[in-house]
Amino acid sequence: MAASELTFGPRILELADRLAVHSELPGALACTYLTPAHRATAQELAQWMRDAGMAVEIDGVANVVGRYAAAGPAKTVVVGSHYDTVVDAGKYDGRLGILTGLVVVEHLNRTGRRLPIAIELIAFSEEEGLRYSASYIGSTAVAGSFDGALLARRDEAGVSLADAIAKSGFDPRAIPSLACRREDLAGYLEVHIEQGPVLLEEGLPLGVVTAIAGGCRFVVTVTGQAGHAGTVPMGLRHDAAAAAAEIILAVERRCTGVPTLVGTVGKLQVPGGATNVIPGRCELSLDIRAADNATRDAAVADVRAEIVAIAQRRGVTIDVRETQRSGAVACSPRVQALFAQAIGRLGLKPRFLPSGAGHDAVSFGPITETGMLFVRCGNGGVSHSPRETITAEDADLGARVLLDVLNSYQV
Amino acid sequence: MAASELTFGPRILELADRLAVHSELPGALACTYLTPAHRATAQELAQWMRDAGMAVEIDGVANVVGRYAAAGPAKTVVVGSHYDTVVDAGKYDGRLGILTGLVVVEHLNRTGRRLPIAIELIAFSEEEGLRYSASYIGSTAVAGSFDGALLARRDEAGVSLADAIAKSGFDPRAIPSLACRREDLAGYLEVHIEQGPVLLEEGLPLGVVTAIAGGCRFVVTVTGQAGHAGTVPMGLRHDAAAAAAEIILAVERRCTGVPTLVGTVGKLQVPGGATNVIPGRCELSLDIRAADNATRDAAVADVRAEIVAIAQRRGVTIDVRETQRSGAVACSPRVQALFAQAIGRLGLKPRFLPSGAGHDAVSFGPITETGMLFVRCGNGGVSHSPRETITAEDADLGARVLLDVLNSYQV
Repeated sequence: MAASELTFGPRILELADRLAVHSELPGALACTYLTPAHRATAQELAQWMRDAGMAVEIDGVANVVGRYAAAGPAKTVVVGSHYDTVVDAGKYDGRLGILTGLVVVEHLNRTGRRLPIAIELIAFSEEEGLRYSASYIGSTAVAGSFDGALLARRDEAGVSLADAIAKSGFDPRAIPSLACRREDLAGYLEVHIEQGPVLLEEGLPLGVVTAIAGGCRFVVTVTGQAGHAGTVPMGLRHDAAAAAAEIILAVERRCTGVPTLVGTVGKLQVPGGATNVIPGRCELSLDIRAADNATRDAAVADVRAEIVAIAQRRGVTIDVRETQRSGAVACSPRVQALFAQAIGRLGLKPRFLPSGAGHDAVSFGPITETGMLFVRCGNGGVSHSPRETITAEDADLGARVLLDVLNSYQV
Repeated sequence: MAASELTFGPRILELADRLAVHSELPGALACTYLTPAHRATAQELAQWMRDAGMAVEIDGVANVVGRYAAAGPAKTVVVGSHYDTVVDAGKYDGRLGILTGLVVVEHLNRTGRRLPIAIELIAFSEEEGLRYSASYIGSTAVAGSFDGALLARRDEAGVSLADAIAKSGFDPRAIPSLACRREDLAGYLEVHIEQGPVLLEEGLPLGVVTAIAGGCRFVVTVTGQAGHAGTVPMGLRHDAAAAAAEIILAVERRCTGVPTLVGTVGKLQVPGGATNVIPGRCELSLDIRAADNATRDAAVADVRAEIVAIAQRRGVTIDVRETQRSGAVACSPRVQALFAQAIGRLGLKPRFLPSGAGHDAVSFGPITETGMLFVRCGNGGVSHSPRETITAEDADLGARVLLDVLNSYQV
């Protein structure tokens, strides 16, 4: 298909380029919660939504909320994703979902169509958790599950979340009033880049998300016995790095071959290590996720047991401290089926896969029928990087599927 | 044996305490080449040597050389070790060898005895390699193998070795003239703490060194593919830390069970690692040593081959850069036998073991009959640490063995 024949794709990519102009960094994309770049992004999104025939407001946590009314009184389907980014980000993480919703509404508006459902397109203000080490500020406010305790948390400059919100002209005490009325809600749909290589490897442009993985994170500290690399025979060593190496491979072994399960040691360091000193200490992180909690918890238990065995065998002590735990969120089977049918109508094979990364959809899973559509990433599936790419063709397919699902959405 | 019955041990420990007063750090021992603390240490050692009846000079690289003449014209046995230290050092590394020689000469002088050999007690000025990343400045100058290219090397403050020597009142151009006359030399003897746990584990106070291990050092860099810890399935990963873990365990496996062979990964780091990012890069050091070059080189070759296999299997690239290589130095069988016989005469079992650490003896191995005596360390064999200890009893036994060997030394 020539690019000129694509209804939606080229415009999505063009808008993503235009949105990326608002950044805290010259020559790179960074759009942190409630910075000037973040405000400029919100203003531009609000204008685009207005131009598409939506009633728009920027709500009390800086979400940009555009409403495209139904033909008559109707329930609402929220289409959403986030516009904040990590530092030195790609242009599509989060924004693809907003812009896909936008071009679909533009199309409906241009063709003068109203659906039996109202569409609320929400550009969530905060999902990456960068500024306050707290994710989903935008979507939890709308879902009615915002954690008020976060308001006292301070960023690196010492500014509390409450102060940052107030300084932006909003009232932090009013956040509970931002919660949507559940009885009006008919569903939540999110289009997002996969941020992984599965679709790319399989040559498929789109995927249907089955569940958003729940994760556990741990800080692991191995304490052995430092010593001279030349003078302590191998059999008398208690090498902290060698114990850490066994942990890394145990995690890899346990998580390989189990569907949806992944385990990662991302941080790894011998503090103050020297070439000629046997490591007396080694620090590592551990991140284990799966599409369901039982699969994840079984892996965590086995890895913990293996760590105990490694410590005993090597005569080292290993401290394992859990720092984070979130439950898996299953996607609605009905919405999965809607996405799969729409993909099938494009002549494509629907590929069901879990999301290992968290998304705004996590906030809506507990309150409405929630579904996600993944769009293939290029460059090996890289994300959180300027090397993040999608094609106009794939973006176009994503928008056509979203339009199809909204068209056929039964309340 | 009560401490009061010990001829040498308590004095060795007392002198080590007194020497440790000269330090660059308050409350900790640091004696770096050509610092004021280093000069004060040399002056004190020179005075003690003079008091023991020796003719003393501080030579052109700050070695303290004390000569205790023979009964008549005779060849010379050098007894030596170093007085510089690492930062936050123990009191016995290097200094035990100097002070053992000193108390033996004090004893000869006090009892009015001259031996058929002259004793040259040398406190070498530089062995640790701290200031100029070059070891053995003191002993190579005396052995005639000083590397003149080092004179241009600069310390962290930008001061060249030549300038540091000149500023201390010596002439760097005169270093070649410090070389001893080989035809006068009958041997080199060094007493040193073991800096390891072997003698401690076996309940033996003394050991006879068979060889000083030759070492190879490498910087290893693994480059894989960074990715999101939640979204890249295990089977599609190219995890640099997991590859590094395999290398660590391959080194350990290959070096275990082979006498005198040791292999260590002392530095280990995922640069900029994050809990939720699959490591795209991992850096580690590799140090492999053995008492003979063939054993070491075979292990290096096997580890290198294993690294190639790991890289192929995991789809990562691994760069292995050799940064240092030194040949093993075998100790003289005749001197080993002299030490062993002297140990036996004390009713102790002679334990033969290699030195995994380098020592000044390395400089003399190529030019004269060279031998080393190890004295047991406490605290698990720790060295390069204020936790380094020896007992007065063990120090006493070391001095008695050195005296016995000097007494029976045949030229």
